[in-house]
Amino acid sequence: MAKSGARSGGKARATKERRSDTALLIIDVINDLEFPGGEKVLPWALRMVERLGPLARRLRAAGVPVIYVNDNFNHWRSNFRDVYRHCTRKGIRGRPVARALKPEPRDYFVLKPKHSAFFATSLVPLLEHLGTKKLLMAGMATNLCVFFSAHDAHMHEYDITVLSDCCAAESDGDHDLALDQLQRFLGVRVCRADEVKRTRRARRPAHPAKGAGRL
Amino acid sequence: MAKSGARSGGKARATKERRSDTALLIIDVINDLEFPGGEKVLPWALRMVERLGPLARRLRAAGVPVIYVNDNFNHWRSNFRDVYRHCTRKGIRGRPVARALKPEPRDYFVLKPKHSAFFATSLVPLLEHLGTKKLLMAGMATNLCVFFSAHDAHMHEYDITVLSDCCAAESDGDHDLALDQLQRFLGVRVCRADEVKRTRRARRPAHPAKGAGRL
Amino acid sequence: MAKSGARSGGKARATKERRSDTALLIIDVINDLEFPGGEKVLPWALRMVERLGPLARRLRAAGVPVIYVNDNFNHWRSNFRDVYRHCTRKGIRGRPVARALKPEPRDYFVLKPKHSAFFATSLVPLLEHLGTKKLLMAGMATNLCVFFSAHDAHMHEYDITVLSDCCAAESDGDHDLALDQLQRFLGVRVCRADEVKRTRRARRPAHPAKGAGRL
Amino acid sequence: MAKSGARSGGKARATKERRSDTALLIIDVINDLEFPGGEKVLPWALRMVERLGPLARRLRAAGVPVIYVNDNFNHWRSNFRDVYRHCTRKGIRGRPVARALKPEPRDYFVLKPKHSAFFATSLVPLLEHLGTKKLLMAGMATNLCVFFSAHDAHMHEYDITVLSDCCAAESDGDHDLALDQLQRFLGVRVCRADEVKRTRRARRPAHPAKGAGRL
Repeated sequence: MAKSGARSGGKARATKERRSDTALLIIDVINDLEFPGGEKVLPWALRMVERLGPLARRLRAAGVPVIYVNDNFNHWRSNFRDVYRHCTRKGIRGRPVARALKPEPRDYFVLKPKHSAFFATSLVPLLEHLGTKKLLMAGMATNLCVFFSAHDAHMHEYDITVLSDCCAAESDGDHDLALDQLQRFLGVRVCRADEVKRTRRARRPAHPAKGAGRL
Repeated sequence: MAKSGARSGGKARATKERRSDTALLIIDVINDLEFPGGEKVLPWALRMVERLGPLARRLRAAGVPVIYVNDNFNHWRSNFRDVYRHCTRKGIRGRPVARALKPEPRDYFVLKPKHSAFFATSLVPLLEHLGTKKLLMAGMATNLCVFFSAHDAHMHEYDITVLSDCCAAESDGDHDLALDQLQRFLGVRVCRADEVKRTRRARRPAHPAKGAGRL
Repeated sequence: MAKSGARSGGKARATKERRSDTALLIIDVINDLEFPGGEKVLPWALRMVERLGPLARRLRAAGVPVIYVNDNFNHWRSNFRDVYRHCTRKGIRGRPVARALKPEPRDYFVLKPKHSAFFATSLVPLLEHLGTKKLLMAGMATNLCVFFSAHDAHMHEYDITVLSDCCAAESDGDHDLALDQLQRFLGVRVCRADEVKRTRRARRPAHPAKGAGRL
Repeated sequence: MAKSGARSGGKARATKERRSDTALLIIDVINDLEFPGGEKVLPWALRMVERLGPLARRLRAAGVPVIYVNDNFNHWRSNFRDVYRHCTRKGIRGRPVARALKPEPRDYFVLKPKHSAFFATSLVPLLEHLGTKKLLMAGMATNLCVFFSAHDAHMHEYDITVLSDCCAAESDGDHDLALDQLQRFLGVRVCRADEVKRTRRARRPAHPAKGAGRL
């Protein structure tokens, strides 16, 4: 609908968003892994989960928005919950990964039809809505959807940090190479989950931030 | 995830889509109408429903994809079902409209963050996926989201028909003016729901089309 | 080319841009007006020139970037200068308009393939490069390219002012209606060129701004 | 301007385009190479020129559109000619490359503000205007603008061939790796300039194509 009344009505109804200059993008972790090569991704994804799960919890507690950007698996039905249900059915390869990273109600969901989190999605308006300038990027595969999303984020001039131990790929070769290319070619920052903490602390040592968007 | 394997895996899993050169776009009809002016839209929306409901059923039966493009009401959770549930609660003004136009499982849903159905959404990739060239456009408000979506469709060079009696606005003045402008400025075709039928029949009189994408 | 070296090299070479939170967008004024109805636009365009010309000079002097966004007339050769030359040849209807609004070397040029200044152009990256949040919009036709560009600017959440006496259309009816719709439907500010001055002065009465981005 | 009259007027005035399902994209070859590392690119670029120059001539003769997509070097003035002049001044490192690949008047030019040929440019509307479905991609650097443009072309679902000996990078390692990744991850076809010929001939052996869009 949306006449100006409709939009502002919509805004009034929306949960009051806590604005934050940083957001955590979690890419394609709600995934059945039921594709050729998925069996190779699984062990790396399980390692990823050990770091990404706690980090997401810590960031949520610090008021940082967590945004799941996930393949729509060609369903085009704008229903993230169905994607989650599909990926957590018994016997599905990606089940332990999806369950360990189960989104919380306050998290945001963006469904994407292609590799990049930015292509034909509402990610940019969402980030503007949240006031986000800095992206912490995680998920899989390091060398595909994370890589190409990071490149698009670079063209959109976001400040980007890719979290090396919160990403997974089919092999450590593909993973390492992608991270190396992001650093060398695009100047993207790459660090581990525990360095997110240290980096932020280092910047504001006296008054550890507690509000929205501070880590 | 989506390495090439992931994507083609996704494709394999998706319901086999019937391709169609025509699609019906239904804009912002799943709407609570709980905004200033919404009470003026309601009677026009109820009239719209009488034509749009039967047309959507007829087109579905003819294999034409029906795509709901709907405001996300600033929820950013990629969950069309929640939007439907919200708009059909007891006491909500838009309830009779939403219920009368309840989507069917085979329909497609696209959530949009702004007026235009094309802005920061997956509509273009979906239309390419379906093979759509011709858009039948309906919904509300005629002079806002329908109008601006039609303009974007025009820039994307789709063949556009706006269905005059399947649209609604706050007043017949706003409605008529918007349709007049679409015709005069953009050369958009405007006709009634029952003319969709006649137009198509006229073109293929001997063998009334039955397959996907034929009306 | 553009490895990270290439880009920063490019940046180093570029003229040092004065950043400004305001920019003047001048739409489709470099126009031959050689289309049916162009003869009706001409007198209104000549009136527009009387206000827009001095305003552009005043804004340039105040350090406000002036951005010409112009139809590419289907030439697709990324050559704004050719468009200017074409429109100022002897006997061309739009010649006096184009000459009176001749761009200066420091101005920016964006060629657009469709109605909207934002569709398939580099306008958003340019505005981000300049640090622009507020758009002063002028040009022709009020009810087409100005109107639809203003709508896209609205979806991109720029602060928009359309300058009523710096726009032109085929008739005063079309012109007035478009401005009325922009105000009513999108909440766009509409004012005259001389009000730009007053508005800004009112805000900073003691220290009339002189720097970049102050009017 | 562009009311419907303006646009169709524009179309009438445009040179009659020969439509073609194939186009040659030449990326960032009009380049001064005056950035750190540019000296390493130069010898590879000179080798590239030996293959790309003749190929471009052959394709033009066969009616295939040649589209230069080039960095705007942060000038934002929509003037490709100035970019060419800048890169061919005496003493400029990229001069021999730019001169050897000098565009012809019938070629198309698209200026891009970032790595990808598709980001914030009119490339998609141009390709639709030309009827292009298949892209032959060349230029530099293989691992940056060619690579990321190929990925965007993939998301837009073009049929892509990257011409290995018509691309250049800072090192053969970067070059080979990028081509390998395009093949492995995106399923992009990679071949040499002389294979373009053979491939096409093989398909239509009896009637060697002469018209627009046939090679």
